[in-house]
Amino acid sequence: MVWVKNRRELLGNATSSLNRKAREVALKAVEAAIDAVDPRRAVKSKVSLSDGTLKVGDLSFNLSSFKKVIVVGGGKASGSMAEALEEILGFHIDGGVVVVPRGTKDNYKTRRVELQEAGHPVPDEGSVRGAARILELAGQAEEGDLVICLISGGGSSLMSMPKTGVSLADKRAMTKMLLRCGATINEINTVRKHISMFKGGQLAEAAYPATLISLILSDVVGDPLEVIASGPTVPDPTTYRDAARVLKHYEIWDEAPKSIKNVLMDGVSGRIRETPKPGEPAFRRVHNIIVGNNRIASLAAKSELQRSGLNTLFLTSFMEGEAREVGIMLAALAREVGASGSPVPKPCGIVVGGETTVTVTGDGIGGRNQEIALSSALKIAGLNGTVIISFSTDGVDGPTNAAGAIVDGSTIARSRKLRLNAVEYLRNNDSYSFFSKLGDLIFTGPTGTNVNDVSVIVCI
Amino acid sequence: MVWVKNRRELLGNATSSLNRKAREVALKAVEAAIDAVDPRRAVKSKVSLSDGTLKVGDLSFNLSSFKKVIVVGGGKASGSMAEALEEILGFHIDGGVVVVPRGTKDNYKTRRVELQEAGHPVPDEGSVRGAARILELAGQAEEGDLVICLISGGGSSLMSMPKTGVSLADKRAMTKMLLRCGATINEINTVRKHISMFKGGQLAEAAYPATLISLILSDVVGDPLEVIASGPTVPDPTTYRDAARVLKHYEIWDEAPKSIKNVLMDGVSGRIRETPKPGEPAFRRVHNIIVGNNRIASLAAKSELQRSGLNTLFLTSFMEGEAREVGIMLAALAREVGASGSPVPKPCGIVVGGETTVTVTGDGIGGRNQEIALSSALKIAGLNGTVIISFSTDGVDGPTNAAGAIVDGSTIARSRKLRLNAVEYLRNNDSYSFFSKLGDLIFTGPTGTNVNDVSVIVCI
Repeated sequence: MVWVKNRRELLGNATSSLNRKAREVALKAVEAAIDAVDPRRAVKSKVSLSDGTLKVGDLSFNLSSFKKVIVVGGGKASGSMAEALEEILGFHIDGGVVVVPRGTKDNYKTRRVELQEAGHPVPDEGSVRGAARILELAGQAEEGDLVICLISGGGSSLMSMPKTGVSLADKRAMTKMLLRCGATINEINTVRKHISMFKGGQLAEAAYPATLISLILSDVVGDPLEVIASGPTVPDPTTYRDAARVLKHYEIWDEAPKSIKNVLMDGVSGRIRETPKPGEPAFRRVHNIIVGNNRIASLAAKSELQRSGLNTLFLTSFMEGEAREVGIMLAALAREVGASGSPVPKPCGIVVGGETTVTVTGDGIGGRNQEIALSSALKIAGLNGTVIISFSTDGVDGPTNAAGAIVDGSTIARSRKLRLNAVEYLRNNDSYSFFSKLGDLIFTGPTGTNVNDVSVIVCI
Repeated sequence: MVWVKNRRELLGNATSSLNRKAREVALKAVEAAIDAVDPRRAVKSKVSLSDGTLKVGDLSFNLSSFKKVIVVGGGKASGSMAEALEEILGFHIDGGVVVVPRGTKDNYKTRRVELQEAGHPVPDEGSVRGAARILELAGQAEEGDLVICLISGGGSSLMSMPKTGVSLADKRAMTKMLLRCGATINEINTVRKHISMFKGGQLAEAAYPATLISLILSDVVGDPLEVIASGPTVPDPTTYRDAARVLKHYEIWDEAPKSIKNVLMDGVSGRIRETPKPGEPAFRRVHNIIVGNNRIASLAAKSELQRSGLNTLFLTSFMEGEAREVGIMLAALAREVGASGSPVPKPCGIVVGGETTVTVTGDGIGGRNQEIALSSALKIAGLNGTVIISFSTDGVDGPTNAAGAIVDGSTIARSRKLRLNAVEYLRNNDSYSFFSKLGDLIFTGPTGTNVNDVSVIVCI
């Protein structure tokens, strides 16, 4: 599919035929990457029905052996996933509920799966209604029934059900407090799972003894199942005691909402049940299947580069860290290709996936991918036929309307002609303004999927 | 050669046989890397004499056609380079002077090349004496003579000759001022070359019309010839005007030493000569040859890993940026190997070269390589058979007595048993203390060479 809306302009900005060719090839890789993790395509690549046999990844099920098939789930991509699943299973689906972000329900045409709207990124009453409805449906499922759960990024907010007595406001206040005191994402999740009735495997517990297949579009680097949408169908190794310890460690126990402290104390003393743990019966019939992730997008980009006739290398889908430093690293790869033909000889394409962060110190506008691109531009200045693109697969890089940016060996020279000081723009976290002036932002619009970021290096 | 002195302890720290094997293989790669850029070996790998034909890299010279052969140069490794050259050329060398750091002269046995001592990293009167002597010898060389120049890291300080009227103190004050105001290394070099009589191609100018072969052991990432030892045999594209502009740009013109302002003004007005520029006759008979660099060390590490039976990949010799971010990147590669067998399938070894920096915010003790290792340890925790080493080829990582450090998937677990909080040690730039307690520092002692840093990932 044509995702890059300003392709013509981006090619027109090339200052040499080599750069133009490299831009062209790199942009095709971008589109292939997004295509590969389109939620509908992701579901269809892993799920098929033929002669009554339902295949999900390597697993096979005799569909007629199930008394009832219901579909639940939530996330920014879960509406599309539900559509695709309906196309595959059709009348076999007996019903279900999938929660989608407010204002997007009309984008999807499902006939058997009901769509409910809820708040994202901040959960609202719709989130609670959605989660309650899902837990109800899952709870009604019996042995011999099949529950298919569609999970994607945003699911944690869209399906949210605090334990009795805890209000959404309490939950929000708690999360803010944890963020402020510097708790790690794992610590925050430990607390969140224990004040929830849905997260941390509790949906799986509700569905037991039905068979549960969770189709997961991963928006977290490394696909940790217990983290994606807070792992409603995944065992939770953490405990109430761990959660309480986090609040005490950061010395926010005293100021934490009373309702939350009550829940944690009740949990520690055994008055309310623990989240389900690894090895518990609740997971005996649970199959968590990744249908799309950063690696799939990155490998699709690599395949496209290969089709364009390049030698290719996929480095990692685990790239993390400060965006500008990753930019230096990408440039270091391109420079070595130019100097010695390592790690792959020209003409070549290298793909790196993951998700970086930006430590904001300036007051400009930008996104992590645009900052990667700007940082790398400074280091590849002068290299002809060398292009680096970094982009967000969801089409929205940081608080901007661009997916990312494209640079080549002449980017810095072009910026000098416009009297732009690239170092200053980078220092000021103002990559969006920089690329806006050069016309080298990549615009795709929201893509409806999210498997984090992909960077593509092309040297020809 | 056995460089790693505490090999036995480092192997003893392994918590599994896979980790032990991975440590063993990675440590052998370290030794191979250092061996490959030993200054003597570096010179001998590029220079040979056979039947009166002097071969230097791809070049051939009829040695008997030269009337006189003199050897000059300076740097921390140049004493060893001179020894090696004497072993190759013997009585063909008619004389020469090479400048080495104070207190190291007795380490070398040269018979035809005189060794002089000078200050490093701060130039002293010895630096001036050495540079003057070299310029004198080069100036006496005539058409038909051969001047061989031995350049290595530290040469800029060891061979230092300010322009008339500029004192060493003025020069030092100027450099300090430039560093303080945030000038880039290129800008600092532009100023330095124009207040020097030696740097920026001026040695080549003095040697003209003799033939000049410069053998260079590169201690700068990417081998920019004009930067290594300030490029005494390399054209200088920058001008007095550029140098003056740097001082004005950073608004330090007024406070700059008067002697330096005088030199720059004389230069701008044409009263004193420019440094020699690209294309000038002075460089017609100049051959700048890299005999050792980071890539050679990295590729030797890769070859050693290959000999150990691993699938190997050399990524880049251009790695730069913040050490802890590079550590995350190395871990991202190891994690992908574990998850998908990309970029190379197990058992594998990946080599990355370059030189990182550390932005110090804590008050601990550490070096850039130790910080890379600590940062990566946090991200590979739990991966069995995965080892990461980062080390400085000169054997001295930052202000410590260690060359670097080794980590594996059990490093964090081992540190927890010792009640060490790895995150805190990293936050406090205290990697040396951390690894000291674990016994995972790598000790080689000073190796006598320097081609920056090499990191090795082994996954078996």
